[in-house]
Amino acid sequence: MDYPESVALVDVGPRDGLQNEKQPIAAADKIALVHRLQAAGLKRVEVTSFVSPKWVPQMADNTEVMAGIDRQPGVAYSVLTPNMKGYEAALPSRPDEIVVFGAASEAFSQRNINCSIEESIERFRPVVEAAQAAGIHVRGAISCALGCPYEGEVAPSRVARVAGLMKDIGVQHVGVADTIGTGTPLKTQRALEAAFKHYAVREVSGHFHDTYGQALSNTLAALELGVWQFDTSVAGLGGCPYAKGATGNVATEDVVYLLHGMGIETGIDLEALADTGAWISGVLGRQTQSRVGRALLARRAG
Amino acid sequence: MDYPESVALVDVGPRDGLQNEKQPIAAADKIALVHRLQAAGLKRVEVTSFVSPKWVPQMADNTEVMAGIDRQPGVAYSVLTPNMKGYEAALPSRPDEIVVFGAASEAFSQRNINCSIEESIERFRPVVEAAQAAGIHVRGAISCALGCPYEGEVAPSRVARVAGLMKDIGVQHVGVADTIGTGTPLKTQRALEAAFKHYAVREVSGHFHDTYGQALSNTLAALELGVWQFDTSVAGLGGCPYAKGATGNVATEDVVYLLHGMGIETGIDLEALADTGAWISGVLGRQTQSRVGRALLARRAG
Repeated sequence: MDYPESVALVDVGPRDGLQNEKQPIAAADKIALVHRLQAAGLKRVEVTSFVSPKWVPQMADNTEVMAGIDRQPGVAYSVLTPNMKGYEAALPSRPDEIVVFGAASEAFSQRNINCSIEESIERFRPVVEAAQAAGIHVRGAISCALGCPYEGEVAPSRVARVAGLMKDIGVQHVGVADTIGTGTPLKTQRALEAAFKHYAVREVSGHFHDTYGQALSNTLAALELGVWQFDTSVAGLGGCPYAKGATGNVATEDVVYLLHGMGIETGIDLEALADTGAWISGVLGRQTQSRVGRALLARRAG
Repeated sequence: MDYPESVALVDVGPRDGLQNEKQPIAAADKIALVHRLQAAGLKRVEVTSFVSPKWVPQMADNTEVMAGIDRQPGVAYSVLTPNMKGYEAALPSRPDEIVVFGAASEAFSQRNINCSIEESIERFRPVVEAAQAAGIHVRGAISCALGCPYEGEVAPSRVARVAGLMKDIGVQHVGVADTIGTGTPLKTQRALEAAFKHYAVREVSGHFHDTYGQALSNTLAALELGVWQFDTSVAGLGGCPYAKGATGNVATEDVVYLLHGMGIETGIDLEALADTGAWISGVLGRQTQSRVGRALLARRAG
C-alpha cells in the first residue's frame, strides 16, 4: 500500500466546530484558538463564516475575529461565504481561501437552502468569479456525500454530479463531506472516486464526521486512495445537528495520532494540539471529545 | 482489496468488560447480558474468569453465571483460566473454550504476574494439555502486542516469540491484543504478520482497545490482511486500567456498523445489540461508550 508521505489538515474547529454553540464565546477566545492552532503547527485554519447573524449568531463577530489574528507566514486562513453578500463582507478581512458549498442530496438542498442543488451551485458562480479575480483560492464543500438525514444512502453518482457542477463554475478544490457521519470505508472510497472524475487527487479532501465512530477508518480508506488533505476539528468541536447529543467532526488529535503512528508527517505537535483541545473544551465547560486528548490527559494524571 | 465475506466476533463484555467494575453487579444481570448478546446474534461470548476472587472479586460468581446461562446451540461460551486451579474450577461449568494469556512485553509480564514471559507460558502447558484431552478449545491472548504501559513500543518480533511459545504448548488460536490502545494500522499489520509466523490467518484474531480511538482503523487494517475474527465488547464495556478515565475495549456496535457498512456479514442484529448496550450501561449507571450506540439512541430520540 502506498500511503502519502505527509498530510495537510485544515482545522475547521473555529468555524464548523463553534458555529452551532448556543453559549456566547468571546471573539478573544476564538482568536486565541486560532493562535494556539497555528502555534501547534496547523497550516490551514477555517476561521469563521460570513453569513447573516440572523442565521448563525455565533459567527457575527467574523470581521473582529479575522482582524484579531496575528497572521503567520505559511498559514492559510479560510472563511465560509454562503453568497455574494457574504463574499463582499469577507473581502476586507483578506481571507486566503473562501469556502462555498453544495449538497449531494437533493432533499437536503431543498430543506436546508430551499433550492435545487443545481440552483445552489449556480448562485455561487459570481462569487467564484470574483474570488478568482481577487486571487483568492476557492474550496467547495460537498455535504451529505456519504448519507443524508432525509434520503439515507447517497449514490456516488450524486457526488460526481455536484463535483462536476462545482468544476464548471471554477471551484478549485472539493471536500467530500460525511455530514452525518454514517459513511464506512468502501462507501468513502466510492464517493472520493466520484469526485476524482472531475478533480485530481491533490484537489480533493476528506471531511469525515465521527458520529458513528467511523471517521478514522474512513480516513485510512481515503489515504489508501492517495488523498492527503482532510478537514478535522480540534477537540472534536461541533455536534451533529441531525442527531442531538451525538458527536460531529472528527478530532484533529485523533487523526494526527493515526497519521504519526503510520509514519505520515503532519508538521503538528500532538501534545500542543491536545493542550489546545483541552483548553477550548474548558472554555466551553465540557470535556474534550477527542479520545486521544482524553487518553493523553489521563496518562499525564497518572 | 479482498475483504472477508463474513466476520466472527467474540463479545468479551461479560468478562473483560465487567471484570474491573468496582460496583457489585448481580449474577442475574451478567446472565441476562449473555442472553441478550446471543439473542442479538453473537455466536461467541467470553463469559467469566476462573481466577481467585481475591484478585478479581467481580468474577467470584463465575460458577453461578455459567450455570445460569440458557445455552443456545451454535454458541460458544469461553472462560479465562489463569492457571491449573482455575482450569479445574472451570471444568464443571463445561466451557466450550478456555482462554490463556501471555504478554509480548517482558516488563509487563514481570510487573503483572511476577515472572518472565517464557515461564508464564510454560505454566500453561498442563492446562492446555488437560483442556485438549477434554476436547476444550484453547485460545491464547497475547497482551501488549502493540504497546506496553512500561516499555512503550513493542517490536513485532516479541509478538512472534510469544506466538511461537503458545504454539509450542498447543494453544490453537491466538488473539493479538492492543491492551493499551496505542496501536495504529501499520503497526497492527506488522503484529498480526508476526503471529502468522506460527498460526494460520484463520487461527488469529484481533483484540483492539479504543483508548486512542484507533480500534476501527486497526480493525480495517486487519481485515485487509484477511483476519476475520475479533474480540469486541458491547457498549465498549471495560476501561483502560493504565489510563484512568480513558476508554478500553472497542464497542461491538461500532465494529458491527463498520462491517455491515462494508457489506461484511456478522449475523448480528445491530439494533438489538445497541439495545443491549444501552441496557447494560443503564445497569452500570452510565452512558454507553459506543458511538454507534449513542448515535442510534440520539436518532431515535429525534
